[in-house]
Amino acid sequence: MSQITITNKEIGRQTLAHLNNLTKPIGSLGRLEELAVQIAEITDEPFPNVSPPVSIVFAADHGIALEGVSAYPQEVTAQMAANFLSGGAGINVLTNQIKGQFVLVDIGIASELKGSGYINEKIRYGTANFAKESAMTKGQAVKAIEAGIKVTTNAISNGANSVILGEMGIGNTTSSSAILAILSGEAVENVVGPGTGISEEKLLNKQQVIKKALMDRNPDPNDVLDILSKVGGLEIAGMTGAILGAASKKTPLIIDGFISTVSAVLAIRLAPNVRNYLIFSHQSQEAGHGIALKMLEAKPLLDLELRLGEGTGAALAFPLVQSSVHVLKEMATFTGAGISITEKSEDLEN
Amino acid sequence: MSQITITNKEIGRQTLAHLNNLTKPIGSLGRLEELAVQIAEITDEPFPNVSPPVSIVFAADHGIALEGVSAYPQEVTAQMAANFLSGGAGINVLTNQIKGQFVLVDIGIASELKGSGYINEKIRYGTANFAKESAMTKGQAVKAIEAGIKVTTNAISNGANSVILGEMGIGNTTSSSAILAILSGEAVENVVGPGTGISEEKLLNKQQVIKKALMDRNPDPNDVLDILSKVGGLEIAGMTGAILGAASKKTPLIIDGFISTVSAVLAIRLAPNVRNYLIFSHQSQEAGHGIALKMLEAKPLLDLELRLGEGTGAALAFPLVQSSVHVLKEMATFTGAGISITEKSEDLEN
Repeated sequence: MSQITITNKEIGRQTLAHLNNLTKPIGSLGRLEELAVQIAEITDEPFPNVSPPVSIVFAADHGIALEGVSAYPQEVTAQMAANFLSGGAGINVLTNQIKGQFVLVDIGIASELKGSGYINEKIRYGTANFAKESAMTKGQAVKAIEAGIKVTTNAISNGANSVILGEMGIGNTTSSSAILAILSGEAVENVVGPGTGISEEKLLNKQQVIKKALMDRNPDPNDVLDILSKVGGLEIAGMTGAILGAASKKTPLIIDGFISTVSAVLAIRLAPNVRNYLIFSHQSQEAGHGIALKMLEAKPLLDLELRLGEGTGAALAFPLVQSSVHVLKEMATFTGAGISITEKSEDLEN
Repeated sequence: MSQITITNKEIGRQTLAHLNNLTKPIGSLGRLEELAVQIAEITDEPFPNVSPPVSIVFAADHGIALEGVSAYPQEVTAQMAANFLSGGAGINVLTNQIKGQFVLVDIGIASELKGSGYINEKIRYGTANFAKESAMTKGQAVKAIEAGIKVTTNAISNGANSVILGEMGIGNTTSSSAILAILSGEAVENVVGPGTGISEEKLLNKQQVIKKALMDRNPDPNDVLDILSKVGGLEIAGMTGAILGAASKKTPLIIDGFISTVSAVLAIRLAPNVRNYLIFSHQSQEAGHGIALKMLEAKPLLDLELRLGEGTGAALAFPLVQSSVHVLKEMATFTGAGISITEKSEDLEN
């Protein structure tokens, strides 16, 4: 944690000055220019690289799935993990498009994963059902965070210049909603919405399950490990670690949807300096996501009505991240291009 | 115009059925799925290609620039055109990123363009000042539209599978605002905003210039050629032609910001079937843009506070267009991946 420093604001100022000399009206590339400044600050480089990216997907199961909170059975986690390994999932396709590396981490799938080419960091065979007992021990939560740090810093050491963070785990919006209710102080009804398309009946059940569990487990809102151990999940802890790992390596990390944003809230609780290392990719359809983003004062890049997870929104935003760096590094300056600026104005298009 | 047919809704239905079998909750890739359906409808292909794209930038000057409506002098059009040819502008950088071809069309720059590698379709040396007289003749407006059709259909015949449309022309938001006021019936004050950063004084002048010109020139709101000839501009007419050309070749065309959206309104007036061939890339900062988008019931993909023009917003949206097609073509189906769907639900993430 102590290795995570404040991002370099001085290099950000230099980057902005350079952007203002490029052949375009000042500020006319809007949020792309903010991104370029942020990435320079994160990497401590005036002309940073973000390619190649690595997509890291943490997969785990949730005992809470037994409470009928999801439309899919628990086996789907392992089946989707196999789909990731054979390259057929959305995140595979989108990672290929951006020429990224793909890493699947089994951090707690409830069965043995068939196939190879994944990282085995299985802490346990799924969490316990947090409606009945703690999801895991504090020691396991620490191990899951450490696994996330290790996998991510390794991927960066192996050449990744940015990280796309994703997850798979039937039941994980239930854990995420529980965590967010604790951290935000919002009513459970507000953090569990009908956004993902479950029936009204299932939604009410999901809310009841979370409410009762929060009363019974009573996690300490000021203790991240207490929260993670009591309501899960393993992949959420792993993602929290991944965020800490990327920041410790001064590497930009792109947050996907609701679940990864909840991990970001947890990571920032552990190390507040982490905040400026994160790029928020999209506003998802999940009800709690808006609340989590607001807590972080984050304004995502995209709003495409996505609700798939896996890191797909983060992968979709990656080309914008890449563009911001290309503009910074490749555009001509006004002096270089011999263009008159009779008035230092923000208006060239007119 | 008669070659522009209604897009193929039947293939759209087949595409949607295929998307619903892919390993993701139904509809969970949101607007990406809508895009995939639209592109299949446009191209009449169940598994279409959008790569490589071509970025076509139409450049021309505007006599109205003499009225002090812009912060930059007219020479900047030619200087930026030279910058395009040497590869230093924003649209060059972003076109390189997406491995597109770049085409600059001189359709009416007020001076001789130095350098090579551009298409010379100069109709005249800039438009006349429409505060004093018609910007051009109706014959010239027709020629500019025809040039746009020719350049675009040639680029498609030479292998481009999608078109990114852009422009450069000092003074062209003044022409665009005038056109939009005529076509929308909105007050000039509503279509000319302070969005691009000119001073309050210049903004009031710009509004006055447009108001007086519209009274003096009195264009017929039901006659596209009368409008274009009276208030310009050459690149706007060229873009109108480009849109017609792409649609006639069943090729998706990505609209950039305010000026290209105004061209889209004109093209749709000429051939209403054109509408579904267009992908709207971003919501710009220019005041009139929202009005033009609303007229077309268009919801752009991005909102990144851009106001550069040149086609940069369209180029930035291209990777999303590409992703929609990759998802359609490359993701596994539930049956193929052996994944249980016990409940045909829209919820997998839960």
